[in-house]
Amino acid sequence: MKIQVVSKILDANERIAVENKEAFDRHHVFVINLMSSPGAGKTTLLEKTISQLKDSISIAVIEGDIAGVDDAMRIEALGIPVVQINTGGYCHLDAGMIRDAFNEFDLTKTDLIFIENVGNLVCPAEFYMGEDIKAMILSITEGHDKPLKYPTMFQNSSVILINKIDLKPHLDVDIDKIKTDIKKLNPSAVIFEVSCKTGEGLQGWIDWLKTASTSKRL
Amino acid sequence: MKIQVVSKILDANERIAVENKEAFDRHHVFVINLMSSPGAGKTTLLEKTISQLKDSISIAVIEGDIAGVDDAMRIEALGIPVVQINTGGYCHLDAGMIRDAFNEFDLTKTDLIFIENVGNLVCPAEFYMGEDIKAMILSITEGHDKPLKYPTMFQNSSVILINKIDLKPHLDVDIDKIKTDIKKLNPSAVIFEVSCKTGEGLQGWIDWLKTASTSKRL
Repeated sequence: MKIQVVSKILDANERIAVENKEAFDRHHVFVINLMSSPGAGKTTLLEKTISQLKDSISIAVIEGDIAGVDDAMRIEALGIPVVQINTGGYCHLDAGMIRDAFNEFDLTKTDLIFIENVGNLVCPAEFYMGEDIKAMILSITEGHDKPLKYPTMFQNSSVILINKIDLKPHLDVDIDKIKTDIKKLNPSAVIFEVSCKTGEGLQGWIDWLKTASTSKRL
Repeated sequence: MKIQVVSKILDANERIAVENKEAFDRHHVFVINLMSSPGAGKTTLLEKTISQLKDSISIAVIEGDIAGVDDAMRIEALGIPVVQINTGGYCHLDAGMIRDAFNEFDLTKTDLIFIENVGNLVCPAEFYMGEDIKAMILSITEGHDKPLKYPTMFQNSSVILINKIDLKPHLDVDIDKIKTDIKKLNPSAVIFEVSCKTGEGLQGWIDWLKTASTSKRL
């Protein structure tokens, strides 16, 4: 008897992810899996992005955290449907958690779903949940060595936001090196340099997002 | 037939961890498992700490990273024995990896081993490797909501360094809330506020470390 436990678990996740994707596609919902280290700015990016887009695009959010509901409360304050997943120690979201969460939304009235993954630069990158794209945030406070030290997430993300550029004068960080290393790992990655705090650079990301989510509705 | 794969894996890790601990104890080596999010300052802390202590204490370092040897090269430049573990995607170090690594050191001539874990605020906290204590770094750039969102690591760490306090004037971060929340989760945690960049606050940590590692040699 041969037992392959790890691949069985991955297959189960993959199978649910494909079903999720079919449901999203059927309803023309564009879904983004947003990942980063803890505290890189995922929730602040969502707040800024949703504030600008919510009158023209119908948005819902799935919040993933080990514990707590702070992030969901910040999103709910914007008047957006939100489901908080508490993983209770599990270090990333998976397809089954997303299936249970998006069933709380009316997909016929939803254009765009953000999945805010657990803050973790390693594990979330390896689990497909049915999303259209993976996007990630790197805060420049984390240092310019991160792409080469955590290559999988940089390789798997179609969009990479380099955040907290307002802090650049106070840091020894080489943003050009970050971009060069990302391009080595992932030549087609779309990169935006932003400050979610001041709003600098966010328009490029928002324009990109509007185009991407509108394309799926056509 | 009942198969309990997860608990078997944990037991195997635990068994090796206990053997590691016995080897460390037999040679009176004090071992610290150092954890944090990516880019919170683990390697810089080690550089500053080792520079101050290496003439009075015999130190060795195990560097854990998904990929790359940058951190090991930074430590090697200090003239300290170092082993780099590349986990190839695995999100934390485990007891077996540590056993293979510390066999490269002469424990009879070693007082203190730092294990720099993979940058990850979730998974490393759950795997005992035979260390005397777990220590962690939180960078204030990650925000004051982190203790309650990632409770396990804050609960399991005997020492918690709050780093990058030189950036406080440029951030909206409440360090008192960080400390209050840590104390709720882990009343006996020893907390140091430091800037590994400027050196502010590091003396307290270094004095604590000197006392702890000397105590194990007595």
